[in-house]
Amino acid sequence: MEAIGLTLPIVREGDDLAGLILRAATEEGLAIEDGDILVVTEKILAKAQGRVVRLDSVTPSEEARALARKTGKDPRLVELILSESREVLAAGDGFLITETLEGFVCANAGIDQSNVEEGFVKLLPEGPDKAAEEIRLEVEKRTGKKVGVVISDSFGRPFRCGSVGVAIGASGVKALWDRRGEADLYGRTLQSTRVAVGDLIASTANLVSGDADEKTPVVLIRGLKGLAGNGRGADLIRSREQDMFRRKV
Amino acid sequence: MEAIGLTLPIVREGDDLAGLILRAATEEGLAIEDGDILVVTEKILAKAQGRVVRLDSVTPSEEARALARKTGKDPRLVELILSESREVLAAGDGFLITETLEGFVCANAGIDQSNVEEGFVKLLPEGPDKAAEEIRLEVEKRTGKKVGVVISDSFGRPFRCGSVGVAIGASGVKALWDRRGEADLYGRTLQSTRVAVGDLIASTANLVSGDADEKTPVVLIRGLKGLAGNGRGADLIRSREQDMFRRKV
Repeated sequence: MEAIGLTLPIVREGDDLAGLILRAATEEGLAIEDGDILVVTEKILAKAQGRVVRLDSVTPSEEARALARKTGKDPRLVELILSESREVLAAGDGFLITETLEGFVCANAGIDQSNVEEGFVKLLPEGPDKAAEEIRLEVEKRTGKKVGVVISDSFGRPFRCGSVGVAIGASGVKALWDRRGEADLYGRTLQSTRVAVGDLIASTANLVSGDADEKTPVVLIRGLKGLAGNGRGADLIRSREQDMFRRKV
Repeated sequence: MEAIGLTLPIVREGDDLAGLILRAATEEGLAIEDGDILVVTEKILAKAQGRVVRLDSVTPSEEARALARKTGKDPRLVELILSESREVLAAGDGFLITETLEGFVCANAGIDQSNVEEGFVKLLPEGPDKAAEEIRLEVEKRTGKKVGVVISDSFGRPFRCGSVGVAIGASGVKALWDRRGEADLYGRTLQSTRVAVGDLIASTANLVSGDADEKTPVVLIRGLKGLAGNGRGADLIRSREQDMFRRKV
């Protein structure tokens, strides 16, 4: 497997991501091949969608003010977090964990204060699975090759420190790979192996690109076999009913 | 970045892992280079340590029998899980989540019934950080090159479906990378970016090798800069006090 970071210019609202990605690949001397997976950080998708908000334009509600006091966060930021969330899961000094409107459990509803201009914040992109499909179809139309697209982000998690890559959107690629029924080394059937391939792909891209800036916001992964599929980022969301930790919180 | 799976013979107790890894690399036509990271699945480390137990040799306690009824698991397996754990976090039909003696929160204390002979199970390796260091020192002694070693496993997690790679041991490489203080695209200081580099490395290896069998139980990752360090797998364990979900369970 090879994983190559692609350098893009700073993305603005309305930009044609497929075009920018293909131009960046060309500049790297790369022609898209069948089976390539393009991992696109949510940061540039959100910017292309215009999901950047000026904090001064936000009027915090009473609920947001109360949570801002509890968490030490800017009340305007908390108002945005709440408006992007279905439910607050945990709140305390310096942290606010919610379930977003798309169903992702993460800090601050994925709202980012880095890599945007002073006084602005960036929301998570809307419809990441649909956006992944649009990029994939556009890349396939222009290149004639079959590719996969993953929209990646970095989330923290319980039990372990630090952020890892997650796939919030996918198209043309496996996301949750159910390997139950396959045989192990001794020919016995595997009982419980479901692999979060989408998250593995996103973590691989994170490792290549780092996450502090957008210098290589797209990573091309090449050389993996058997990963074409119809996965979606939504497949990786564990339902509340199936989450033994969620139920007890 | 390149990631290349290395094919090893089935590992037996007492095997010299560093020797097997170097032979496998040679067979792939690869000479170890400075900065290479060797990701070793815990499965072969555990086997080399002889951490394989015959279920028939286990006598379940009363507590194990009760938990076996609750979870539908083999009481002898439950006995082993309890003896490898500090604490049960969650138990129900088909699942048993504990904190292991090393501090990892995972299903079944990481005990594996796949890829071992019928009637046997495989425990997690002992002292994965120390084992990573031993492999690293041996590889460095025999090659004269500076490398990193990660001992990887696959864990499930709350909120998201499917397993991802985790680093349970590390040596010579960053594990938890604190990037707070670095600048973003606009020159502002990052507030809260701690990256679980060890887990990203393990997930990259998982993506290359798959997890259903041991065909390529070692993955060589090459071409990443800036990842040398003194990380340990233990750095990635979130303390109980800092875990807002753990405290509420």
